[in-house]
Amino acid sequence: MDSKQFVTQIADINENFAQWYTDVVLKTELVDYGPVKGTMVIRPYGYAIWENIQKDLDARFKQTGAKNAYFPLLIPMSYFTKEAEHVEGFAPEVAVVTHAGGAKLEEPLAIRPTSETVIGTMYAKWIQSYRDLPVMMNQWCNVMRWEKTTRPFLRTSEFLWQEGHTVHASEEEAVEETMKMLEVYRSFAEETLAIPIYTGRKTEKEKFAGAVATFGMEAMMLDGKSLQAGTSHYLGQNFSKAFNIKYLDKDSNQKFGYTTSWGVSTRLIGAIIMAHGDQRGLVLPPKVAPIQTIIVPIATHKSGVIEKAKEVESILVKAGIRAETDIRDMSPGWKFNEWEMKGVPVRLEIGPRDIENNQAVIVRRDTFEKITVSLDNLAECVNAILEQVQSNMLVKSKAHRDARTIEADSLDGILSGVEGKNFVKAGWCGCRECEDKVKEVAQATARVMCDEDGVPEKCAICGKPAKHKVIFARAY
Amino acid sequence: MDSKQFVTQIADINENFAQWYTDVVLKTELVDYGPVKGTMVIRPYGYAIWENIQKDLDARFKQTGAKNAYFPLLIPMSYFTKEAEHVEGFAPEVAVVTHAGGAKLEEPLAIRPTSETVIGTMYAKWIQSYRDLPVMMNQWCNVMRWEKTTRPFLRTSEFLWQEGHTVHASEEEAVEETMKMLEVYRSFAEETLAIPIYTGRKTEKEKFAGAVATFGMEAMMLDGKSLQAGTSHYLGQNFSKAFNIKYLDKDSNQKFGYTTSWGVSTRLIGAIIMAHGDQRGLVLPPKVAPIQTIIVPIATHKSGVIEKAKEVESILVKAGIRAETDIRDMSPGWKFNEWEMKGVPVRLEIGPRDIENNQAVIVRRDTFEKITVSLDNLAECVNAILEQVQSNMLVKSKAHRDARTIEADSLDGILSGVEGKNFVKAGWCGCRECEDKVKEVAQATARVMCDEDGVPEKCAICGKPAKHKVIFARAY
Repeated sequence: MDSKQFVTQIADINENFAQWYTDVVLKTELVDYGPVKGTMVIRPYGYAIWENIQKDLDARFKQTGAKNAYFPLLIPMSYFTKEAEHVEGFAPEVAVVTHAGGAKLEEPLAIRPTSETVIGTMYAKWIQSYRDLPVMMNQWCNVMRWEKTTRPFLRTSEFLWQEGHTVHASEEEAVEETMKMLEVYRSFAEETLAIPIYTGRKTEKEKFAGAVATFGMEAMMLDGKSLQAGTSHYLGQNFSKAFNIKYLDKDSNQKFGYTTSWGVSTRLIGAIIMAHGDQRGLVLPPKVAPIQTIIVPIATHKSGVIEKAKEVESILVKAGIRAETDIRDMSPGWKFNEWEMKGVPVRLEIGPRDIENNQAVIVRRDTFEKITVSLDNLAECVNAILEQVQSNMLVKSKAHRDARTIEADSLDGILSGVEGKNFVKAGWCGCRECEDKVKEVAQATARVMCDEDGVPEKCAICGKPAKHKVIFARAY
Repeated sequence: MDSKQFVTQIADINENFAQWYTDVVLKTELVDYGPVKGTMVIRPYGYAIWENIQKDLDARFKQTGAKNAYFPLLIPMSYFTKEAEHVEGFAPEVAVVTHAGGAKLEEPLAIRPTSETVIGTMYAKWIQSYRDLPVMMNQWCNVMRWEKTTRPFLRTSEFLWQEGHTVHASEEEAVEETMKMLEVYRSFAEETLAIPIYTGRKTEKEKFAGAVATFGMEAMMLDGKSLQAGTSHYLGQNFSKAFNIKYLDKDSNQKFGYTTSWGVSTRLIGAIIMAHGDQRGLVLPPKVAPIQTIIVPIATHKSGVIEKAKEVESILVKAGIRAETDIRDMSPGWKFNEWEMKGVPVRLEIGPRDIENNQAVIVRRDTFEKITVSLDNLAECVNAILEQVQSNMLVKSKAHRDARTIEADSLDGILSGVEGKNFVKAGWCGCRECEDKVKEVAQATARVMCDEDGVPEKCAICGKPAKHKVIFARAY
């Protein structure tokens, strides 16, 4: 909060991307490390981004008919063992409550790493007949997965997310829901975060523990690595059989439901930072920026300047723009640096000569373009520029992603491709050995399959006939 | 979810209020019991009320300058011991994580029962100078306090709440913040929940563990018991000294800050139920009702009826009213019962004859008054009725509260007063013995002090000179 800490340096984005990331998230006060290893504190500037994400996504969920609910944090350990793959996947990273209220518990309780088990238990109780289906619920909550390393927003033991859980009468309907929610995420990422996404099915190795099929969305970061930004799982009858989610069908037979689950987390904030940032710091998409326009009055000692700046602020705020005025006792240049670092999409400068000429100077964060605008119709003008920033950011990151998507037909090609910081599309025979080989040789993983893109004849790794086309990349 | 379960009976509200409450929260699908003892699941209909509460309160908090943030769930056990009263108050009801990631932890971690300790630790790191003050943050989160009994919304091991935490340079400013947030809660309860509140300082016995002074808000429930609906704590320098929250003042001296904290929880939903309900079930204040107007088409087999109902719905929804149409294949009478039980403030019936006459019939949930309205200007009309319901509910609960607020000047008077289901105002000498005596004899506690009401000459319990006027009541 002390203003002095803003002036310090950020590591070189090209030479040390990891340090650049850490510098940016800490210095812009998005986040801080919590007292317990592996935890983070989301500070107001970071949390405001999350609130904007939540508001936008929540409306999209509700449009599909999903409703919010809240399920308990603590899950009996025995629940995890009911679905064999699920326990194998999650047991190693669970945090366990063994004592409470001054006594040892009869059964240890897990802090939810994800809630299929507890929500499945409740669904089994609530669902009786085909008339009760589909059931579509979502919860916004904290989850915990014990991690050895800490990277704010990317990898922490506790994080915030939403998890949607649905039950359907037929496989067809459940698969449709899985794909629909994947599309909700994809369009949200593009329209709101200005991040283009590759979506597709995950390989068996990379899928969610307990799913029949996992569909992921992968975003290209500025350092050429991929970030999994969200997943939508088709769970088939795996969980409905494990938790006895049955319904009486029209034909008077008891049948197991088909379930799905889908989630995105505060990781999305990491994606925004690494998809759009630059040497000066954050570049925030206007739709999620906590402050969309920062007003910096120039020559504040001159009478009427601060008043005019405040007047401009109130005009913008009335028009629905998140605008603030920086009237602190610091130089304009210092303020420019700080708000550039904090990624505010539009800066509006106003001084005595501007006031005389009934104008203001606008500087775009994405292009640094300077635009002199009239104070008449100012709100319309700022709104138009914010829209331009938003769409330009998508164009830019799409160009980056496309330029860094290449094809390869050999393991060498995959290796040099990912070393060159690319998404590499290649044929794959479908066997685990080849997938492991890519990991071993190129430190890259199969991000998603993109068969609709045209499956090559041969597997790039073993040369046998290919069954899929896969996007390989190094990933967060 | 199966429609059949709605038809069942609710216990008599006058004969067995506790069972009435349980029946209502379960049958209206606000809530269900979770698999772990002491936990609840907040179902969509209940969670939608919480979302409306959050939206309204959050805007009020932000108007005071508070910003949202998120702090870790897990707190090192050693943190609690830093403030002596605090550990004594909370240690017995803490849930403890001892194992994580497959290994035993070096230090056991508490699941937050409240976050003064972890937030204080971060504030100490962030605050350097007087320029950083005041700091005002709030978080919406889950907390856990191990409980032996379970009463959905009223007493569960895990619940949802918000906790605001502020730091100020002076005692005066911190006390002002404490009182300001109490007033935010009081006005919110009256304006939005239609619940009149007595506010005041708590006695030493009843205050928050670690506070200098706790101010509470007490609401009268229909059974004559009091419900503590929120608290605002002035913490003085207790936590700033324990956690080293210091700032460099203008005079170049290091000084400890003065802190406050304030919170309300999903208990508020319990307050709504018990302040407004009746034999038919819930009566929800329009401002927080998930559905404000339920449209029930009559004689749906007649052509055009469902279409007209849907048209009415879209007119209301466009006007910002939360309206839904019940087109299920059940009789109108069955639907009336169900939506009355679910507390929807306004029911709108529309059938062939209504359509012919360009009208609809509106029935208010609070008074059962029937009003025939024209379909012209329908939205304005419904909005006006919703406002009337909202204000009438406050008038009604205020009348109930006032009629049940009496004075007493003896222990007998207090006993017969609380047995008669009243708030009892009485003089108190200020000593713990007299307070304990009231508890022992009348099973009532000091809810808040109301000295501004005029302190009586004598303590109603011991007859010595009174120092305070206290509201005694039996309480949840």
